[in-house]
Amino acid sequence: MTKPTDEFKTISKYFAPLSAAESGAFNLTDDAAVIEPPEGQSLVVTTDALVAGVHFLPNDPPADIAAKLLRVSLSDLAAMGAKPAHYSLSLAVSSDLTEDWLSAFSAGLALDQKEFGVTLIGGDTVSAAGPLTLSLTAMGYVEKGKALRRSEAQIGDDIWVSGTIGDGALGLLIANEKMNDLAADKREYLLMRYRRPLPQLTLGQKLIGHARGTIDISDGLIADLGHICETSNVGADIQITAIPLSEAAKEALEMDPKILDLVLGGGDDYELLFTADASFETMSKSVVSEVGVALTKIGTITKGTAIRLFYENGSEHRIDQTGFTHF
Amino acid sequence: MTKPTDEFKTISKYFAPLSAAESGAFNLTDDAAVIEPPEGQSLVVTTDALVAGVHFLPNDPPADIAAKLLRVSLSDLAAMGAKPAHYSLSLAVSSDLTEDWLSAFSAGLALDQKEFGVTLIGGDTVSAAGPLTLSLTAMGYVEKGKALRRSEAQIGDDIWVSGTIGDGALGLLIANEKMNDLAADKREYLLMRYRRPLPQLTLGQKLIGHARGTIDISDGLIADLGHICETSNVGADIQITAIPLSEAAKEALEMDPKILDLVLGGGDDYELLFTADASFETMSKSVVSEVGVALTKIGTITKGTAIRLFYENGSEHRIDQTGFTHF
Repeated sequence: MTKPTDEFKTISKYFAPLSAAESGAFNLTDDAAVIEPPEGQSLVVTTDALVAGVHFLPNDPPADIAAKLLRVSLSDLAAMGAKPAHYSLSLAVSSDLTEDWLSAFSAGLALDQKEFGVTLIGGDTVSAAGPLTLSLTAMGYVEKGKALRRSEAQIGDDIWVSGTIGDGALGLLIANEKMNDLAADKREYLLMRYRRPLPQLTLGQKLIGHARGTIDISDGLIADLGHICETSNVGADIQITAIPLSEAAKEALEMDPKILDLVLGGGDDYELLFTADASFETMSKSVVSEVGVALTKIGTITKGTAIRLFYENGSEHRIDQTGFTHF
Repeated sequence: MTKPTDEFKTISKYFAPLSAAESGAFNLTDDAAVIEPPEGQSLVVTTDALVAGVHFLPNDPPADIAAKLLRVSLSDLAAMGAKPAHYSLSLAVSSDLTEDWLSAFSAGLALDQKEFGVTLIGGDTVSAAGPLTLSLTAMGYVEKGKALRRSEAQIGDDIWVSGTIGDGALGLLIANEKMNDLAADKREYLLMRYRRPLPQLTLGQKLIGHARGTIDISDGLIADLGHICETSNVGADIQITAIPLSEAAKEALEMDPKILDLVLGGGDDYELLFTADASFETMSKSVVSEVGVALTKIGTITKGTAIRLFYENGSEHRIDQTGFTHF
């Protein structure tokens, strides 16, 4: 059943060069990589799978698919406060995959490796008759006992988010050729946010010792806040008008107020959502200037288990959609 | 595009229990696992992907698929001399996957976790319209600087294999309903060898300090010997009649002498193939009795790059098929 074509050539041509910076990857010619974890550090491991037609569009540029695959996992490391180091990669590809595609995909990985300081250490490439299916396991390090956790939120904590919320979900609409009335530059911006999310790695590392409950927003603001609340046994009150929006998202919202629920419930932001005590407000300014990303206080951790959303006038907003799950 | 069904329930019901032994997996409720690598040890990492219809048959028992997925990666750790510890898992499944399948699959993983001393620490489950596609990243540890390597074979080394060769490839024939004339117990044995390979973990660890070039046989005896020779810059002479065969393989070979090339070139043995200097022969007996697996000397590492196969009378055997590649 197995197809005797050229897996080894693909590995040596497109993937082995990505492992060059790690001698323990043995140029991808051995059974496994042998890595030396730095002393006094914990190893942080996360795995994400992406499927064409589900998590990205089959015709997305290969370099963007590579970027998304890697960045989604790096965002998980960011949420733990970890510094990324290595990753391994599985590709299940159909037989009509071209050399051009592989070349552009691996070039995309090479660029992101430089940007985020990570190195490929292994993987597998297999033939499959279905949609392109990618899986990546990212590894990083954090000082022992210092990893950020979802479960550390405390009643009375402020709730903070980085960057702007909802751009990823709106970018997916654009990719599906919706919201055609939006200005071209705004469409382009949202599409880029969907295709090339930016993992908040520097921010995550800076938040160690300051943030309590911490998560990256992949399922959607409300769903991921739900994960913090569930694991921390708390509730949350959110001020809707405090949620930071990009100019593009604001314009989209003016054109169609109903997309508010998509902003709140759609996924793919890859910003950090975290809680902190009141003392963080003062130091947030220096974090913002060091990291170069906006931080916005959007609510408060409460007793109980409910997540409530309020307008400025005190009226409550109810949404149907509390986030996507991928199954 | 994303389908809002119950990924979280699947994880908590079927996979979170598999992570119970590792507190740093946080019951699979956080963004990543946080692991403490033992001091003085290198981290050994390997990734394998399996696709229904390529690496296993779609209707294979789910527990056997689980076993094969995990054991194929553990076999890579065995080839490095590493002790396995953790793994992460990606499943790309079609929407018609049943609860029964998931239940049997996770039960199979649970059994193997106990047998091999490994713990699930993370993963991802996604929906895909294609064949069931599984990817597993296994992690283990080996004393710093002691990992076994493919590239260490030296001219004049003896070439050794564990267990018996060719059973996996013959088992695949049986799974495809060929060789129907073979006795039922022999068919059952070969099928079991194909579906539930046994990673030679204890042997791998015992070989540290004794074996030189080392690999696990996944692509086939000759192809994997080729990997040792290529990375070590050597050749090899093999005595065909020395290659250890199971009773079932012997019977199959008597019925059809042409399957010799399948024995030599077919994959899925997951035995260890290694080279060692002459002093190993004496100590091999104690290794055999400690580990409980046969070790057989099948040839010699030579100068040059050729792999040659000889009959007892000195005549050379040429095969067409030097191993499967998976792409």
